[in-house]
Amino acid sequence: MSQKFVLLMHCEDAVGIIHNVTGILLRRGFNIVEQGEYVDPESHRFFLRTAVEHGESAGIEEEFRSLGLEDLWFRFSEERRHKIVLFCGKEAHCPGDLLIRHHSGELPATIEAVVSNRSDLQELVERFDVPFYHISADGISREEHESRVLKRLSEFSCDFLVLAKYMRILTAEFTASFPERIINIHHSFLPAFIGAKPYHRAHKRGVKIIGATAHFVTSDLDEGPIIAQDIEPVSHRQTVSDLIRCGHDVEKIVLARSLRLVLQHRVVIFQNRTILFD
Amino acid sequence: MSQKFVLLMHCEDAVGIIHNVTGILLRRGFNIVEQGEYVDPESHRFFLRTAVEHGESAGIEEEFRSLGLEDLWFRFSEERRHKIVLFCGKEAHCPGDLLIRHHSGELPATIEAVVSNRSDLQELVERFDVPFYHISADGISREEHESRVLKRLSEFSCDFLVLAKYMRILTAEFTASFPERIINIHHSFLPAFIGAKPYHRAHKRGVKIIGATAHFVTSDLDEGPIIAQDIEPVSHRQTVSDLIRCGHDVEKIVLARSLRLVLQHRVVIFQNRTILFD
Amino acid sequence: MSQKFVLLMHCEDAVGIIHNVTGILLRRGFNIVEQGEYVDPESHRFFLRTAVEHGESAGIEEEFRSLGLEDLWFRFSEERRHKIVLFCGKEAHCPGDLLIRHHSGELPATIEAVVSNRSDLQELVERFDVPFYHISADGISREEHESRVLKRLSEFSCDFLVLAKYMRILTAEFTASFPERIINIHHSFLPAFIGAKPYHRAHKRGVKIIGATAHFVTSDLDEGPIIAQDIEPVSHRQTVSDLIRCGHDVEKIVLARSLRLVLQHRVVIFQNRTILFD
Amino acid sequence: MSQKFVLLMHCEDAVGIIHNVTGILLRRGFNIVEQGEYVDPESHRFFLRTAVEHGESAGIEEEFRSLGLEDLWFRFSEERRHKIVLFCGKEAHCPGDLLIRHHSGELPATIEAVVSNRSDLQELVERFDVPFYHISADGISREEHESRVLKRLSEFSCDFLVLAKYMRILTAEFTASFPERIINIHHSFLPAFIGAKPYHRAHKRGVKIIGATAHFVTSDLDEGPIIAQDIEPVSHRQTVSDLIRCGHDVEKIVLARSLRLVLQHRVVIFQNRTILFD
Repeated sequence: MSQKFVLLMHCEDAVGIIHNVTGILLRRGFNIVEQGEYVDPESHRFFLRTAVEHGESAGIEEEFRSLGLEDLWFRFSEERRHKIVLFCGKEAHCPGDLLIRHHSGELPATIEAVVSNRSDLQELVERFDVPFYHISADGISREEHESRVLKRLSEFSCDFLVLAKYMRILTAEFTASFPERIINIHHSFLPAFIGAKPYHRAHKRGVKIIGATAHFVTSDLDEGPIIAQDIEPVSHRQTVSDLIRCGHDVEKIVLARSLRLVLQHRVVIFQNRTILFD
Repeated sequence: MSQKFVLLMHCEDAVGIIHNVTGILLRRGFNIVEQGEYVDPESHRFFLRTAVEHGESAGIEEEFRSLGLEDLWFRFSEERRHKIVLFCGKEAHCPGDLLIRHHSGELPATIEAVVSNRSDLQELVERFDVPFYHISADGISREEHESRVLKRLSEFSCDFLVLAKYMRILTAEFTASFPERIINIHHSFLPAFIGAKPYHRAHKRGVKIIGATAHFVTSDLDEGPIIAQDIEPVSHRQTVSDLIRCGHDVEKIVLARSLRLVLQHRVVIFQNRTILFD
Repeated sequence: MSQKFVLLMHCEDAVGIIHNVTGILLRRGFNIVEQGEYVDPESHRFFLRTAVEHGESAGIEEEFRSLGLEDLWFRFSEERRHKIVLFCGKEAHCPGDLLIRHHSGELPATIEAVVSNRSDLQELVERFDVPFYHISADGISREEHESRVLKRLSEFSCDFLVLAKYMRILTAEFTASFPERIINIHHSFLPAFIGAKPYHRAHKRGVKIIGATAHFVTSDLDEGPIIAQDIEPVSHRQTVSDLIRCGHDVEKIVLARSLRLVLQHRVVIFQNRTILFD
Repeated sequence: MSQKFVLLMHCEDAVGIIHNVTGILLRRGFNIVEQGEYVDPESHRFFLRTAVEHGESAGIEEEFRSLGLEDLWFRFSEERRHKIVLFCGKEAHCPGDLLIRHHSGELPATIEAVVSNRSDLQELVERFDVPFYHISADGISREEHESRVLKRLSEFSCDFLVLAKYMRILTAEFTASFPERIINIHHSFLPAFIGAKPYHRAHKRGVKIIGATAHFVTSDLDEGPIIAQDIEPVSHRQTVSDLIRCGHDVEKIVLARSLRLVLQHRVVIFQNRTILFD
């Protein structure tokens, strides 16, 4: 009975929603630990996040539905330790940062495995006793590679895939298999420099600030809902490789920050935008 | 009936507060436009801000009180255009910025007057057809000066006093006359460099970032509840006068931002800290 | 003889440039007040800014040229108060900010006039005794409008045109008449949201940070050399009009900052990028 | 002959310093790769950093001294991989971040060892095959503890000591043994919250921004020359433990950034302030 739950919901705005939803929770003995709301004044959409504890959850979904709220979406999740799989390329900074957080108990999730089409980070990952699966893409089609990846993923349960500088483009089929469950870090301040080699293009354009963007992956490359962004001032003195190094720090912090929001059920997606209860 | 109201409240946390408060509002026909809550996990204090419209307000205070909430504080205010008085010294950047915002209709308040112990800005202020009162402090005691200021203030209604780089220290008596109604901009990142000449001391200390702090004024100099802070990176290349110039930009933005929060009833003070519903 | 000069130069990198250039300055009795250099490791281009005083300037250009530096560009300018003309639309924040800085003596330039295709800001500008020229574009071609603007500009000397939220697109002919002399503030973090209505598109894309970019205007819309950029975090709670209001603060600060750099001869343009000696 | 050197110097400002110094370098066949200067307009102090390659270094110190510059300080160092020793407590974020950078070759130094009065991080450090020395301070005096630490340090060469959240105060004797060679990360935006438990005090004060400061350690606690600072916005919603977690990200980035500056000979100390050639 000491379980904690998080209710995430959105629906058409209407009179009395909060009153009615909190009524259900109260009658079931739940204690509200944290509550956040938002009504979008343009779409008249109502959003709610409520963290509760100590109540009776059996059948609560039915009761929410019985409120007759229009176009209702909700998720009532028990708080638990999520399982994630990291995808990486050759760069150590993002996976390394998550491995350190994982090792020191800061990451509220278990890293089940690290997957890569390259073997560069195998040695580092295995120092942390985390399984590393090198699934080469050499000489095979994108579909064949993804099918091998999916086969490997099927061996263990996995709530979220975290693309920690995984440099391959995923097919629409693959991303559709994990809706709202793939998080990517893009090394630019989206929508600036969508696509490949953003730091090279930022340097050429002579920008004075670089950035990083963590977002959910959809079938549309670099167009998924943005979770977090941050920036770092730069100057003409910085070469492309300086921008890359400097950008690494922003990337890893933004990725970790967005992952924390997702793992704590603080993110709702609506019309390709995120509502954050932070 | 098209009036808008904002409820700001805090009390001991308890089961069902939101349910009960929203119940009162609903029965009175109010439509909830915006709602924010916060429960401080340490003090177990419950905070609420609710913006409503179209309902019946007569006697609502009684009804709130009848809920029997422990240690309840609340304010149910009709949304209206506030009246403010600016206090300034010789520096134009903060008053100038507020005058421009005022003139272009961006400031959600009316500047009733500008008061100063100096006449430097009289010419500028009067260009905007705002009354300027030069109340010299030369040769008189602090108490006598404040008594002349108070006499002048008594001539018009005034919701908030805004110290827009007013460089005089106010007596405890004066500040006590305007509880939670005086906003000051301090030219440092408090609590660093409390007191006089913060930029000179920042330069001497060799800091790499300067800042500004907007806060409510209490009897304790520079110790009142902080509303907003922001910073600006600096380098060894900047002289004291560079820091001052560069700091002006932060000061005016932070002051305007905090003033907006206060005018929109988005700030609650509790135990010398602010809870912001932004 | 108490004149101050700034030397800005760039050329192919070579051995001994600094030694030779400072040699010329020393023999002429100049005292070096401030010096900055930069060598771009990719293009092997050498950049120099040197501020000097108290020396003999007559014929110095010849002496620089006689050094035989490859592909040399330089400007040896006496420090003086520049003259600028503001171009504006209906929004007061950027012109208002510059007018306040101008009035309080902070802007190191004289605002000769304000030009607009609209009359919205006439009343504000004239409060500061600055001439306002309303040149309507109604019912005439872009070329005809620009020809009327140019005619007006020909009446007074003008070092820089400052587009302080002037919402009209300039023709290639017009911009070519003022090479490296037109500064624009764009209301997005370029190259994100090039073109019209950046805040609307930022809102739709669900970004978590907005920005502003000051740049030189070239014939290529929003593609000129970037001088300064800054950003402001935003959230899903902010509507388009909130983004616009919030963006105004960034815009005006970035514009003023970049204008100061230009007026102090701290900006060199090379291959569509700026080298800043700040 | 393919050696690289960095000249760092400061002295009383005078006419012709750059000309004379570059003259020495040129005559010795050095190619100037990067050069930065700064003259402090208040103290009239001249600062120079010049990176050179391919020249003759033998006896160059004598030649610099023979210039007769007043109150000259300089260091002409060959570029080489430095050796550092980390000092840590129980928190993994700073040492972990440096270990990952070290492992992936990003850190321009070798971590010779990690020293701690606690054993918490031994297991993590040894995963990276870096020696960990647990030197307990239990039951012994501060002096005795430091003498044991010094004995251990004497076993290997070490250019810099990096206090990566080492929570013990060092004696004046210890710090005097490593002048300008100990770098500390303090978990506040100094000079705010000097001393112990800065996050607790920041929370109590209700600040809206937290920060971190990397500085050289002198005998004066938290008063040494500041190398880098950065900040992170926070809100009333964050508890002390949220501030601590959130602050960890700033701390590790600021520490790594300042360490890079020091290792690349980009920092000069003068009158307890740092001049950075970045």
